[in-house]
Amino acid sequence: MRKRLKNRIWPLWVFLCVAGTVLAQPPRGPLVVSPQVNADKTVTFRYLSPAAREVKLSGQFLKAPIEMTKDEQGIWSVTVGPVKPDIYPYSFQVNGVTVMDPANVAFFPNERFKASLVDVPGDTPLIHALRDVPHGSINYEYYPSLEGTTGSLVVYTPPGYDQNTAKKYPVFYLISGTTDTEETFFKVGKTNLILDNLIAEGKARPMIIVMPYGNIAARIAEQKGGTKPADPTVRDGVDAVKRANDFTTDLVNNVIPYVEKTYRTIANRENRAIGGFSRGGGQTLRTAFNHMDKFAWVCSYSSYLSPTEMDKSFPHITSSPANTNKQLKLFWVSVGSDDFLYQGTVEFMDYLKAKKVNFKSLITDGGHTWMNVKKYVAETAPLLFQ
Amino acid sequence: MRKRLKNRIWPLWVFLCVAGTVLAQPPRGPLVVSPQVNADKTVTFRYLSPAAREVKLSGQFLKAPIEMTKDEQGIWSVTVGPVKPDIYPYSFQVNGVTVMDPANVAFFPNERFKASLVDVPGDTPLIHALRDVPHGSINYEYYPSLEGTTGSLVVYTPPGYDQNTAKKYPVFYLISGTTDTEETFFKVGKTNLILDNLIAEGKARPMIIVMPYGNIAARIAEQKGGTKPADPTVRDGVDAVKRANDFTTDLVNNVIPYVEKTYRTIANRENRAIGGFSRGGGQTLRTAFNHMDKFAWVCSYSSYLSPTEMDKSFPHITSSPANTNKQLKLFWVSVGSDDFLYQGTVEFMDYLKAKKVNFKSLITDGGHTWMNVKKYVAETAPLLFQ
Repeated sequence: MRKRLKNRIWPLWVFLCVAGTVLAQPPRGPLVVSPQVNADKTVTFRYLSPAAREVKLSGQFLKAPIEMTKDEQGIWSVTVGPVKPDIYPYSFQVNGVTVMDPANVAFFPNERFKASLVDVPGDTPLIHALRDVPHGSINYEYYPSLEGTTGSLVVYTPPGYDQNTAKKYPVFYLISGTTDTEETFFKVGKTNLILDNLIAEGKARPMIIVMPYGNIAARIAEQKGGTKPADPTVRDGVDAVKRANDFTTDLVNNVIPYVEKTYRTIANRENRAIGGFSRGGGQTLRTAFNHMDKFAWVCSYSSYLSPTEMDKSFPHITSSPANTNKQLKLFWVSVGSDDFLYQGTVEFMDYLKAKKVNFKSLITDGGHTWMNVKKYVAETAPLLFQ
Repeated sequence: MRKRLKNRIWPLWVFLCVAGTVLAQPPRGPLVVSPQVNADKTVTFRYLSPAAREVKLSGQFLKAPIEMTKDEQGIWSVTVGPVKPDIYPYSFQVNGVTVMDPANVAFFPNERFKASLVDVPGDTPLIHALRDVPHGSINYEYYPSLEGTTGSLVVYTPPGYDQNTAKKYPVFYLISGTTDTEETFFKVGKTNLILDNLIAEGKARPMIIVMPYGNIAARIAEQKGGTKPADPTVRDGVDAVKRANDFTTDLVNNVIPYVEKTYRTIANRENRAIGGFSRGGGQTLRTAFNHMDKFAWVCSYSSYLSPTEMDKSFPHITSSPANTNKQLKLFWVSVGSDDFLYQGTVEFMDYLKAKKVNFKSLITDGGHTWMNVKKYVAETAPLLFQ
């Protein structure tokens, strides 16, 4: 028995609570409940490690990591808050090593860091709360992408999509940020639940939302590399313009045709929106400005283009502002006042004002966070396709 | 700037490669590529930590954790193998702390441990390889579950499902193991890709696959607990029979009606299969034996019921074996020869033989692993609904 089990990487007790062999207690340490959201909006975090020297909690609800304390069972814990209701990323620092919460299924899909998520509910349900309303569906799709690779998409279809098989829908293309994946708007942004709630309240039009993966270069390197060593300079190289162009080319030539073939869409610019966060906001602006025939609704969340790039690459946007203003049914720019891109975004807004290009703007509290992204999606979705 | 950023839990460089502010190199350490599958099927794993004292690699392709070594940049690495082509869970042990690979998006959805996944491709594509064949779709769904809670399902629809809107399909209910989630058959088991490939080769009938979450008690505690502290004795208590019954009740009364209302199914026992791994195999056997009117195809992967439970709870299965044999179009039992449930499963097979209940069986190499689960799904899917 001992020999057989020695190449497992997780504790024995994980495997013991199975058909016919249920044990009253796991043999290796107590079961840890974490995170535990308390009635007063404080949250208790726990991490089991009798051997750890030091465990801290880091989270976007904290100004700085805080110490946790160990009980006689070897469970480290700390209670923080009350915490303002929202969804926050957090992690533990165990002997200085950053780890996800092993007891928590909710995770932040990302290429470069691993974090867990805690959802502190409001006294009245927040805009992303799972409520008893009709739910749309999230669909994972594969599509033929650049250079013979296979791309992946996450697609939201609104409630009733499968029932009313004659109805066609407008489409919102929604692009996540640097190091995010195609799952981040679903798993962290809760875009599906925000839309379910807005649609149930009659505040947003039923729409399809398509969430692509922004890092085309990484996918090509992974798939084309095959058994060759991956080349970091390809995976995240300096050629930002080529990468931005690749994204636009893939979206326009591959993603949109795939979506319009696979889903019941209204396939014209008045029924296509594009939006994105951070790098995805930059991809949004470049794609929209390069393809004004494709999108009439444009949302930039926590991102901007520099006046230099605007003047050089998109003179047609500013040379005839009346034309731009007529073409864009919505041009939205929002940023948090603590965002490290705040200054650049404000300069972008000032530039657009000087050029007489109309846009709606929102400056919120907070920084370059997914708490703000949820807010921006909830503010803009009701404006689309109206 | 410094003040604004101090409450972030991930490195600054993550945020810097965004619209308008692309840097040639991240300012905090080099970009790590991991895992890197080499042409000779060796695999190089890397972990960035200039400060770590010791880093080891654990993986289901290893007999025991192995040491990694640090280079002058602070990147720890090790090359292992050649590794037999398959998908394996792995993690790093950093100063004794188990962590996922921060540079790898592929993860193992689980309630109690966090592991990354490495996919070593075969010289000819393995059964779960992403190939250039028509792909089905993975759908995340919410449904009304027990005690007013909202349950979640992952549902595979086969290629062509959305195009041929008159066609109806048989349904395979597929249940993951203890501490797995409703995502595990998708993310680790690659059930969608296995079916895409089998269907493309004409080896399996196009079918819908429904993947529920097995730990009903945990979900009820989470949702009903609301702001109350979660109770570990509720979350994973000793009342295994009640928990098993809750699962069956939810599947039969809630999941199946939801699926048959939402998808185009052939809603009779000859077109319903049920299967599961580990605890999900136990849930499969109990649900099927309690509802012989519902399922004609039954697959138990790495699990069994004890002769005592069979005699006590399911005498109708063995009292008239001719009837059972007529009702069950497939009764499948498989296990690995290194599985810690091997002995119990062999006793179950012996019991069934003695009672003259027909079943197909497969004993494979290996243990209680998802490498074996993939194999079992690939073996059984072609047998279903034929």
